[in-house]
Amino acid sequence: MRHLLSIADLGRDDVERILETAGALQGVEDKLPTLQGKLVLSLFFESSTRTSSSFELAAKRLSADVMSLKAVGSSVDKGESLKDTVLTLAQYEPHAIVVRHPQIGAPQVVARHSGAAVVNAGDGKHQHPTQALLDLFTMREALGRLEGLHVAIVGDVLHSRVARSLIQALVLVGARTTLVGPPTLIPRGIEAMGCETASEIDAIAAADVVYVLRMQQERMESAYVPSLREYAARWGITPERVRPGQKVMHPGPINRGVEIDGRVADGPDSLILEQVRSGLAVRMAVLHDLLAPRLTLHETAAVA
Amino acid sequence: MRHLLSIADLGRDDVERILETAGALQGVEDKLPTLQGKLVLSLFFESSTRTSSSFELAAKRLSADVMSLKAVGSSVDKGESLKDTVLTLAQYEPHAIVVRHPQIGAPQVVARHSGAAVVNAGDGKHQHPTQALLDLFTMREALGRLEGLHVAIVGDVLHSRVARSLIQALVLVGARTTLVGPPTLIPRGIEAMGCETASEIDAIAAADVVYVLRMQQERMESAYVPSLREYAARWGITPERVRPGQKVMHPGPINRGVEIDGRVADGPDSLILEQVRSGLAVRMAVLHDLLAPRLTLHETAAVA
Amino acid sequence: MRHLLSIADLGRDDVERILETAGALQGVEDKLPTLQGKLVLSLFFESSTRTSSSFELAAKRLSADVMSLKAVGSSVDKGESLKDTVLTLAQYEPHAIVVRHPQIGAPQVVARHSGAAVVNAGDGKHQHPTQALLDLFTMREALGRLEGLHVAIVGDVLHSRVARSLIQALVLVGARTTLVGPPTLIPRGIEAMGCETASEIDAIAAADVVYVLRMQQERMESAYVPSLREYAARWGITPERVRPGQKVMHPGPINRGVEIDGRVADGPDSLILEQVRSGLAVRMAVLHDLLAPRLTLHETAAVA
Repeated sequence: MRHLLSIADLGRDDVERILETAGALQGVEDKLPTLQGKLVLSLFFESSTRTSSSFELAAKRLSADVMSLKAVGSSVDKGESLKDTVLTLAQYEPHAIVVRHPQIGAPQVVARHSGAAVVNAGDGKHQHPTQALLDLFTMREALGRLEGLHVAIVGDVLHSRVARSLIQALVLVGARTTLVGPPTLIPRGIEAMGCETASEIDAIAAADVVYVLRMQQERMESAYVPSLREYAARWGITPERVRPGQKVMHPGPINRGVEIDGRVADGPDSLILEQVRSGLAVRMAVLHDLLAPRLTLHETAAVA
Repeated sequence: MRHLLSIADLGRDDVERILETAGALQGVEDKLPTLQGKLVLSLFFESSTRTSSSFELAAKRLSADVMSLKAVGSSVDKGESLKDTVLTLAQYEPHAIVVRHPQIGAPQVVARHSGAAVVNAGDGKHQHPTQALLDLFTMREALGRLEGLHVAIVGDVLHSRVARSLIQALVLVGARTTLVGPPTLIPRGIEAMGCETASEIDAIAAADVVYVLRMQQERMESAYVPSLREYAARWGITPERVRPGQKVMHPGPINRGVEIDGRVADGPDSLILEQVRSGLAVRMAVLHDLLAPRLTLHETAAVA
Repeated sequence: MRHLLSIADLGRDDVERILETAGALQGVEDKLPTLQGKLVLSLFFESSTRTSSSFELAAKRLSADVMSLKAVGSSVDKGESLKDTVLTLAQYEPHAIVVRHPQIGAPQVVARHSGAAVVNAGDGKHQHPTQALLDLFTMREALGRLEGLHVAIVGDVLHSRVARSLIQALVLVGARTTLVGPPTLIPRGIEAMGCETASEIDAIAAADVVYVLRMQQERMESAYVPSLREYAARWGITPERVRPGQKVMHPGPINRGVEIDGRVADGPDSLILEQVRSGLAVRMAVLHDLLAPRLTLHETAAVA
């Protein structure tokens, strides 16, 4: 694996290996020397705290040097093209570049114009592969398996890079996926990706996992849904709509009372905080896999 | 001591111990390994350079890893509640969280929802305990004692978390406090905290230390005082109003020519820069006390 | 050398020594322990990604601790004077302060009020000495010499601190400089600095190096030039205007199609990316020279 740009680039073996590495790393409390002397560049062209801090911390826990550049207040403001920004930053010879960008395909541009291993931390509505991997990791930790699992993804699939990556990842590991939400927010023909669709919230009943997508305020304004209140009434995940043992996930940050009821988010079947914790382990695993592929975990631990 | 949320939580012993630790640390030029492998999260929901950089540097001097999150450009913008932000960040298992927030009581929320030791770096008009501790440290360094010292606090006590923390701290160590300023800016009934009040600037004459509060532009606009010029004329600390040997302090940043005359700020009795220097030592001491309470300074130095 | 405030402060020996150190450091891949335990403060009062990240990385590669303060969201917003900001930050006893500021002379203020070695990272239209040094380094690497070299600087000299520093540096090393551009953008009497001027683009033909300045959008609005299109037609560096072997440089970020044609910027004679790479080595060399002047490179390498 040279880059992590899209789940579509991964084989089932890759997923297995990353999840296994993440599992091994999650137990480790001490900083590991694995990436000592390596430079990880974090390049965020969209604001983000969760994802950028998760990557930053992951890199630091592996002893990498991290340099974080935000697009705001950067040369980007001066109208520089992404290609020129990348060509410039490539002169610092970073070993990895983690990039989030509003344009689909931006991480490919970064990969083409730098010698670094590139991790896509979200590009437009396209992909967010580490989110999908951490979701798989969380599901397997909680339910013991991925194959044959039934996951209902609820809400705004249309605008969601999280959903797009997750559907691909679930197909790859042999899980069954049902997309549930208002027809305006479920892309036509998306079944071709290997999932089912449903337009009634009851469809979540059969799922092992209810994966709730964030409902963005902006969607109301663009008339995709009539109002937040109506959305919550029809699609919001309330205690009445889930059964004990049915796991609930959300990529965060959550809108309490909109797409998810606070009682569900804080309930015993919520995996939302586990997802955050998994994110750190999975991002460490991805960086490990890209930058120290020949170093076994056993060796990594031995050095520590 | 599990957290430092308010001076009200401290006993005289706690204050003594922190000031003593700060004194020992101020002499040390080298980085200490005390907090190696510990993660300190700096979480600022209000803009700040002085306090955030002071904490960051203090943590780094003790070899902690520091992760700084600013509220601007963060998930907070997406309407996430403080509780949810804290629950999320707690998944990274930080050992300490330093938090500044415009709402009173926010640090308590952070303490409740994370396993970290929490340091209040300022919450609304409520508390700013490390500022009070560094002020005590500075006074003792300059005057050799705290008990029986007479401190006049001048200006906008009403809106000042610095004043609130300092009054409590001075009471705790047996100093005498007089609040001096326009009645609109001295809260009614504040004498119950253990201090005196005065409404003429002459009242500072008897004090060993004149502690000048920052006069904020916004107060003029809200009609608390008629104008900056009039405020300066009546309450500004000019060379004529202080006597040689009478120490002058200010939490910074200063408004030259408003609450303090430049000649006083730069004069031989000004402790303003000493306060900044003390801030670093005191914040190191607080982090040491919270995260390595059983490690004596002697041991800390021995490892170095 | 105590500070690097202006090229005017340097002798030819200083330039030689810095370029030699940069040459030695450019080969080193590993982090050097040279500045372990030293604190470098990066203080940017103007937004910048390239220069600030270049300095930050240079300091980290020499194992210094770096603390970065941006003016936006800092005490500066509260109207604090530069002098007071510096006096405050000086209490942290930084070993070096790297400063960018919109006002000419600001770095001198920083030098006067702190005990730190100060590096000017750009002050108004005045100086940007590390840019000039990295430009010299790049030219010498590419052409084998500096003495007798002929450099044409093309474009907006009037508003350019880069040009001002570079002209001085070229004079110092015995190179010949011709300024080429619209008369509105070439300051009257600038020949006194030791350079020639020309008002036709053909004047670049004789130069070994064509150094293209960034054309800022704002200049159009202020009527210095009629339009971007007309500027590009008359002064833009196109493939037709340069000959094979004639080197092209630009301080970045470039405006493709305005002051420089993309085919030239990406062509075999472009040194633009080499400049970025040189910047890292030269900034390491400057920090080394200021903070570890007695440590020879041989010793530095030996410790590594």
